[in-house]
Amino acid sequence: MKFEAHINIMPHKALLDPQGKAVTGSMKNIGLPQINNVRVGKRITLEVEADNEDKAKQMVDEACKKLLANQIMESYDFTLQPL
Amino acid sequence: MKFEAHINIMPHKALLDPQGKAVTGSMKNIGLPQINNVRVGKRITLEVEADNEDKAKQMVDEACKKLLANQIMESYDFTLQPL
Repeated sequence: MKFEAHINIMPHKALLDPQGKAVTGSMKNIGLPQINNVRVGKRITLEVEADNEDKAKQMVDEACKKLLANQIMESYDFTLQPL
Repeated sequence: MKFEAHINIMPHKALLDPQGKAVTGSMKNIGLPQINNVRVGKRITLEVEADNEDKAKQMVDEACKKLLANQIMESYDFTLQPL
């Protein structure tokens, strides 16, 4: 079975996010001072071939831990759906 | 009222995504050849102060168009929820 995974990787809440801070500052310059507290992370989609949803979940989790997310600075979550 | 927006910005389907291609290649090296077709985009969260949901939606859309997304190469979608 084929599944599609949607992964969100965000900087930890406790950490300073310099890219987000810069974007928050720019909002004022484009006339949107009502926008605040911008945080910038990654959105990753991928396809995984697995016997069942549990195994697909395990593989995506392994990919996040080993390659996609830096768990010292980032947290991740994902959803799976059959294709 | 305060709303939180979750924005997903992804490279257009028709475009080559070199970062995603590189990550797809790396999956084989970490023992996950079942993972394919990786695409890497951005996930942005922000807070917006607005009178109502419609106005908040307008502001987030403007921020995406003017600053966050490059519409030539990327498409975006977002969800809003009251805080």
